[in-house]
Amino acid sequence: MMPSVYCALVHYPVVDRTGEVVTTAVTNLDVHDIARSARTYGLSGYFVVTPIEAQRRIVSRIRSHFDGGKGARRVPKRGEALRLVEEVESLEAACAHVERTHSAEPTVYATTARRQPGMVSFEDARARIASNDRPVLIVLGTGHGLADSVYAVAHHVLESIQANADYNHLSVRAAAAIMFDRLFGDSEALALGK
Amino acid sequence: MMPSVYCALVHYPVVDRTGEVVTTAVTNLDVHDIARSARTYGLSGYFVVTPIEAQRRIVSRIRSHFDGGKGARRVPKRGEALRLVEEVESLEAACAHVERTHSAEPTVYATTARRQPGMVSFEDARARIASNDRPVLIVLGTGHGLADSVYAVAHHVLESIQANADYNHLSVRAAAAIMFDRLFGDSEALALGK
Repeated sequence: MMPSVYCALVHYPVVDRTGEVVTTAVTNLDVHDIARSARTYGLSGYFVVTPIEAQRRIVSRIRSHFDGGKGARRVPKRGEALRLVEEVESLEAACAHVERTHSAEPTVYATTARRQPGMVSFEDARARIASNDRPVLIVLGTGHGLADSVYAVAHHVLESIQANADYNHLSVRAAAAIMFDRLFGDSEALALGK
Repeated sequence: MMPSVYCALVHYPVVDRTGEVVTTAVTNLDVHDIARSARTYGLSGYFVVTPIEAQRRIVSRIRSHFDGGKGARRVPKRGEALRLVEEVESLEAACAHVERTHSAEPTVYATTARRQPGMVSFEDARARIASNDRPVLIVLGTGHGLADSVYAVAHHVLESIQANADYNHLSVRAAAAIMFDRLFGDSEALALGK
């Protein structure tokens, strides 16, 4: 039995390529792709985090369009994924939402494409998550990655995907899919799935 | 030593939701995301397959913009991924391209979200690919999946991702990333990677 797992896509606080803390814009396909991956891997929710109200309204409109709106007729399965999406103003609000739902604070896993000391491997994280009934929140960054203040409050930092590759610039949509697969996938190739 | 591996994203022949064979339109982010994933996992090339010349010109323009064009200054790493992209008019042309480069026909792995008889598991495919020096072509479909004529010429069909999930509607961008990770990833979670 997997505990309830959530993910969050953070648009603030993240860094730009110079390392400055910025707010990025919501990308339509991030909402769709990560919702579809989250639904396929059995996640309980997907928070789109942005402090900008007009951006949260865009997320709400995307969801409504496919959940009951015109898009629902054309692509009926999409609403089922987009119903997982919740737009919130901050990572704290996402944690509070999980805590209200489960009467327990989530264990927060931050992610990164850059090596950091003390990262937890996917294998360890998979085992930890499976053996614990506390809810889990996996935090993904946009732009050039999460700001330091997010790592400061996270309980764990997940190892980078393909950290030894000579090129490591996956889209956040691809990275989210790979992480969910490594943590919750049922492939025969995954030793822990057996 | 991995042999040379290529992927192809097919816009024709694919099926729509009624099962009819159609040609789909090129999606900008499919070009970017799958190129970035291909580059990260060490693939040798990424064919965007469409019989429509105007669509192939769009692909060429996306590549030029980031490989030497204006986008190269803003996102210098993107050109390195997009240089893998080659637009071709058919799957046969993609195979011929690989054969010209390597003086050997590629082993063709078709992919699908729907169960089929005789699928090869990711674990088996990973082992087969690693133990063979013939080039490999992994074929991904757009729309509602590859047409039967593609399966008829493929040497293998890869097992579906999360075939046992009650919802299985990953974006092709997410599916490509997960497949490359299962076949070529270096995660500790992958038994075969050890």
